[in-house]
Amino acid sequence: MQTFTFYASDDKLENRGNKLTYTGQQINEAACDLAREVANQGDALVAGGVSQTPSYLSCKSQDEVTKIFKKQLDVFVKKNVDFLIAEYFEHVEEAEWAVQALKATGKPVAASMCIGPEGDMHGVTPGECAVRLVRAGADIVGVNCHFDPMTCVKTVALMKAAVEKAGLKAHYMAQPLAYHTPDCSCQGFIDLPEFPFALEPRILTRWEMQQYAREAYKAGIRFIGGCCGFEPYHIRAVAEELAVERGILPDASEKHGMWGAGLEMHTKPWVRARARRDYWEKLKPASGRPLCPSMSTPDGWGVTKGHAELMQQREATTPDQLRPLFQKADAKN
Amino acid sequence: MQTFTFYASDDKLENRGNKLTYTGQQINEAACDLAREVANQGDALVAGGVSQTPSYLSCKSQDEVTKIFKKQLDVFVKKNVDFLIAEYFEHVEEAEWAVQALKATGKPVAASMCIGPEGDMHGVTPGECAVRLVRAGADIVGVNCHFDPMTCVKTVALMKAAVEKAGLKAHYMAQPLAYHTPDCSCQGFIDLPEFPFALEPRILTRWEMQQYAREAYKAGIRFIGGCCGFEPYHIRAVAEELAVERGILPDASEKHGMWGAGLEMHTKPWVRARARRDYWEKLKPASGRPLCPSMSTPDGWGVTKGHAELMQQREATTPDQLRPLFQKADAKN
Amino acid sequence: MQTFTFYASDDKLENRGNKLTYTGQQINEAACDLAREVANQGDALVAGGVSQTPSYLSCKSQDEVTKIFKKQLDVFVKKNVDFLIAEYFEHVEEAEWAVQALKATGKPVAASMCIGPEGDMHGVTPGECAVRLVRAGADIVGVNCHFDPMTCVKTVALMKAAVEKAGLKAHYMAQPLAYHTPDCSCQGFIDLPEFPFALEPRILTRWEMQQYAREAYKAGIRFIGGCCGFEPYHIRAVAEELAVERGILPDASEKHGMWGAGLEMHTKPWVRARARRDYWEKLKPASGRPLCPSMSTPDGWGVTKGHAELMQQREATTPDQLRPLFQKADAKN
Amino acid sequence: MQTFTFYASDDKLENRGNKLTYTGQQINEAACDLAREVANQGDALVAGGVSQTPSYLSCKSQDEVTKIFKKQLDVFVKKNVDFLIAEYFEHVEEAEWAVQALKATGKPVAASMCIGPEGDMHGVTPGECAVRLVRAGADIVGVNCHFDPMTCVKTVALMKAAVEKAGLKAHYMAQPLAYHTPDCSCQGFIDLPEFPFALEPRILTRWEMQQYAREAYKAGIRFIGGCCGFEPYHIRAVAEELAVERGILPDASEKHGMWGAGLEMHTKPWVRARARRDYWEKLKPASGRPLCPSMSTPDGWGVTKGHAELMQQREATTPDQLRPLFQKADAKN
Repeated sequence: MQTFTFYASDDKLENRGNKLTYTGQQINEAACDLAREVANQGDALVAGGVSQTPSYLSCKSQDEVTKIFKKQLDVFVKKNVDFLIAEYFEHVEEAEWAVQALKATGKPVAASMCIGPEGDMHGVTPGECAVRLVRAGADIVGVNCHFDPMTCVKTVALMKAAVEKAGLKAHYMAQPLAYHTPDCSCQGFIDLPEFPFALEPRILTRWEMQQYAREAYKAGIRFIGGCCGFEPYHIRAVAEELAVERGILPDASEKHGMWGAGLEMHTKPWVRARARRDYWEKLKPASGRPLCPSMSTPDGWGVTKGHAELMQQREATTPDQLRPLFQKADAKN
Repeated sequence: MQTFTFYASDDKLENRGNKLTYTGQQINEAACDLAREVANQGDALVAGGVSQTPSYLSCKSQDEVTKIFKKQLDVFVKKNVDFLIAEYFEHVEEAEWAVQALKATGKPVAASMCIGPEGDMHGVTPGECAVRLVRAGADIVGVNCHFDPMTCVKTVALMKAAVEKAGLKAHYMAQPLAYHTPDCSCQGFIDLPEFPFALEPRILTRWEMQQYAREAYKAGIRFIGGCCGFEPYHIRAVAEELAVERGILPDASEKHGMWGAGLEMHTKPWVRARARRDYWEKLKPASGRPLCPSMSTPDGWGVTKGHAELMQQREATTPDQLRPLFQKADAKN
Repeated sequence: MQTFTFYASDDKLENRGNKLTYTGQQINEAACDLAREVANQGDALVAGGVSQTPSYLSCKSQDEVTKIFKKQLDVFVKKNVDFLIAEYFEHVEEAEWAVQALKATGKPVAASMCIGPEGDMHGVTPGECAVRLVRAGADIVGVNCHFDPMTCVKTVALMKAAVEKAGLKAHYMAQPLAYHTPDCSCQGFIDLPEFPFALEPRILTRWEMQQYAREAYKAGIRFIGGCCGFEPYHIRAVAEELAVERGILPDASEKHGMWGAGLEMHTKPWVRARARRDYWEKLKPASGRPLCPSMSTPDGWGVTKGHAELMQQREATTPDQLRPLFQKADAKN
Repeated sequence: MQTFTFYASDDKLENRGNKLTYTGQQINEAACDLAREVANQGDALVAGGVSQTPSYLSCKSQDEVTKIFKKQLDVFVKKNVDFLIAEYFEHVEEAEWAVQALKATGKPVAASMCIGPEGDMHGVTPGECAVRLVRAGADIVGVNCHFDPMTCVKTVALMKAAVEKAGLKAHYMAQPLAYHTPDCSCQGFIDLPEFPFALEPRILTRWEMQQYAREAYKAGIRFIGGCCGFEPYHIRAVAEELAVERGILPDASEKHGMWGAGLEMHTKPWVRARARRDYWEKLKPASGRPLCPSMSTPDGWGVTKGHAELMQQREATTPDQLRPLFQKADAKN
């Protein structure tokens, strides 16, 4: 059970006109309490999570960035979470700083970056990222968000190969999107024109999720989860695919037959004919959208860390700041 | 607030091996209590609903089918629901029988069929269906399920034109799918190969929902809802599109900016450039599925009411009954 | 063998700035001579063809339009063609005038319109069009151009049914496009955004042509040809599909094996595995264009015969005339 | 003007049941005569071409393979062609042998491989291939066939960078397919399920060809041509795009207006609105094939040089040899 403390660092909570009703400390504490409450309902661990900071993008020093992490960590230590996650980092340098800060607490540390096979924003390969994170103290390394399941499995496989080649040891994790993103560039689905409000046609089916779970398991990944777009039935599909390996079926599975077996009760004979694994595994689902393409051209304006357009501000974005962005975008299409 | 009594007639509850833990009466009563409890939280009416029966498909008489409806109606009357809905009928004849049975209670009656512009399973046009239902006593007529929003609006427009041409009066309703279904035949999405477990790429975006709400309103439809596939954010989109006409914004709308305005706070400048209506209205979202087509060939084996393959049974479907169906399906592809 | 006299009427030859090097008479005569020369190489008939006129669109009278046809007909009679075709008519009224003019020569007359299942530009159904053309004297009726093969077969089937229902007799013809046009409105591929310089991804394969030939034959069509987009190998595919019915294989067929049999000689084993009918019949060919949709939204500005924008002129279109058209088009997209 | 001597080596001419009416020498001589006849009509050079041999795939020695090339070269020298091309090589080793044999004649030598950015069949990168070919004596290096235009430009750019990095000098050539092939693996379009009889939807438009010509020119390629799928209008588009650089317009260009200008004469105003560059450059043409995907999964059975399934034979492939191939292919889909 992970605390809902993503982007809950003080510098992010006050970014671009966001007004705080609660302090960062209050939010992080409440998240810990909620996670523990739910974890206690079953037999789950609680993980406290930190993520990348606007401060890093705005070129603050390691000291300043570490101070930001520390504020969240103080809460996690006080609330005695079971382990820590540094997640959603686009730059391996900031991820290393985070792992070092987390490791100082003495708790186990997982580190996952939001990168694909091309590596981080400066082109550091997934393999090198993983080796650096393990050396910085991470017990688990992997990726989360930004790319679709199969791309994430491929990226973690590159990480594992490099860690083993370096004579190091680690566990591996993957928390991909529930969206197909074959057309992404290095920054993932953020750059897709559909992000974040028109991603529906990219949502994975439950059968594609089972395939992901199988491939992740085969690749040696044992922390197999999901990120943006996952619905409960997606997580259930992952758990069902690995029911034999895990030795249990998830609770909700008793409500339905595996591989569409419930369709045996359907009125139409041609729907009863779909009550089988073979049918759903082979199906290539149509989009129902004949006016839409299958891939998009990602945005991404060549802006990297330190560029003026990435500098963060406390004040809300003004119409005068938005206008040139709208024009730049329209000129591109 | 509609009672969750769809397909809760006694003959359906015992179809093809389904085992009852509760009686049909208990289920219908519990549904009424739940709906009333939620309706009382706001200012909502409760509607008791009946739907098409396996008995009709198996060629039972009007008397027998009406008896099935009556069992549910007795509960609705006892629980004093505010109005009644006869919904999801593929055959206008059965829908008329239902409306007559509902009308006998003295409560207002809505009648919606699961048909598209081609009409019911015997080719009776939407216009003729609507006229017959109004004559049978329906106060509201329309369609639900089986087709996508724009197809449903088109179908109800045909109904309205025919009712007015016949010199009759009615209100109009639409409760479409949240899935794009341009490739359906007369029986709707049931026949699509993706039904029901691989419909994800067909899910509408919130912007497409706003467009539906606008077109439905323009067509004179005032009972504007949704059926399979609708998520809360879809319903919110409908309510937001018609906020001016309704005079209120839905509660949840305070949590986000209209037309993606919240993206003004995003870190990447090219995502801030998406914080506007113009961007989302024009976007044609990609499927992210280059190996998948945009349309499917619907199933449908020419089976109609009365055909042996549509006769219902209490016993579970056996493997011996399934095998020829699997073979027939494979031979078609 | 058809004379290449399409759009070779005097009023069309001088339309919108086209400058004549030869008179209309010279062009029509040369076309007859060429057609006869080629026809004589085999055992073919020569057909002289007329098509719709700018004069009709510009609201000229039956007399004036008939005079235009007469000029071409005088050449055809003088050159003694074997039969006459009135083809590519969007309005049944003009087609009737043409058939009457052609019939007056005493030669057999074929009449084909460029319409789809929705009928002519004023909504006259294909059935009614066919009946009127047969009554006007046509021996053969059908469609050419504007729509894809299967749509044309469907349209001619509607014509045949109506002609037979009216107790009349005729032969039937189809000369479809070699492009898939599922997204056309009543005016056909002219309105598609890809017309005429980006139609490539819509081109039919040879296997789709064989399917067309079979369906056309089954529908009772015996004049089975092609229009825009047909390549020699497409015509060969039509002839090969009907080799048994026709009693001969086309000349060029000796150069290749049927249904890809020549692939038996290929170096790669997985290409040799494609040397069979079953493979090619089932294949759904990919577009190789992941950024392109499968359908377009047709243009068509609600302009019909008599509208100012359809009035023809001898002078070339000026930049001042083009500018508002460009703006109108851009505003639509 | 290139002699049509592709795959006209003696071992290929007698492969898998092909029966010779003419000797290899006769065919190569006739090809030289034809090419010279056409070249003399303009101001063109004649190139004699050799290509990869079944002997190499069947593991014959350098001596044996060189003897095969020599037979064709003897003809080219006797007919005094202007320069030589070694083209369509999948293995750089065989290409080197060819270049050495060609160079021995004293004539200028061009060498082009049918590879993409992933390199040759053994994974030798395009850069290394180019360096080895230049060192073997090639004056021009590049790629032909197997991949679409933009992929070929990308591959030659990799070649050029490596040649320059190695301190060598060469000219560069590209002769791509006229088909979009984004889904190819290293062996190119041979492996696509649509090869070779259902490639139609992948054909490039003339505007895409102009884009190719521009990009190729910018990349420093000066021998800019085409391979399978090119129609005369494609070559004309290449020549028109580079008219300024070349100082001449191709002959056929006088027959039509640039960028669709001829549409100014069209009857429908919305088609006249397409008479401009801006319209055609931005258009993303629809496939008209809603049941077809945009990409395919390439075949390729892991078979490489020396594998039993690649051994060539003089005898025709038997049904007994084909059956297991058909089964293997069906099991894959």
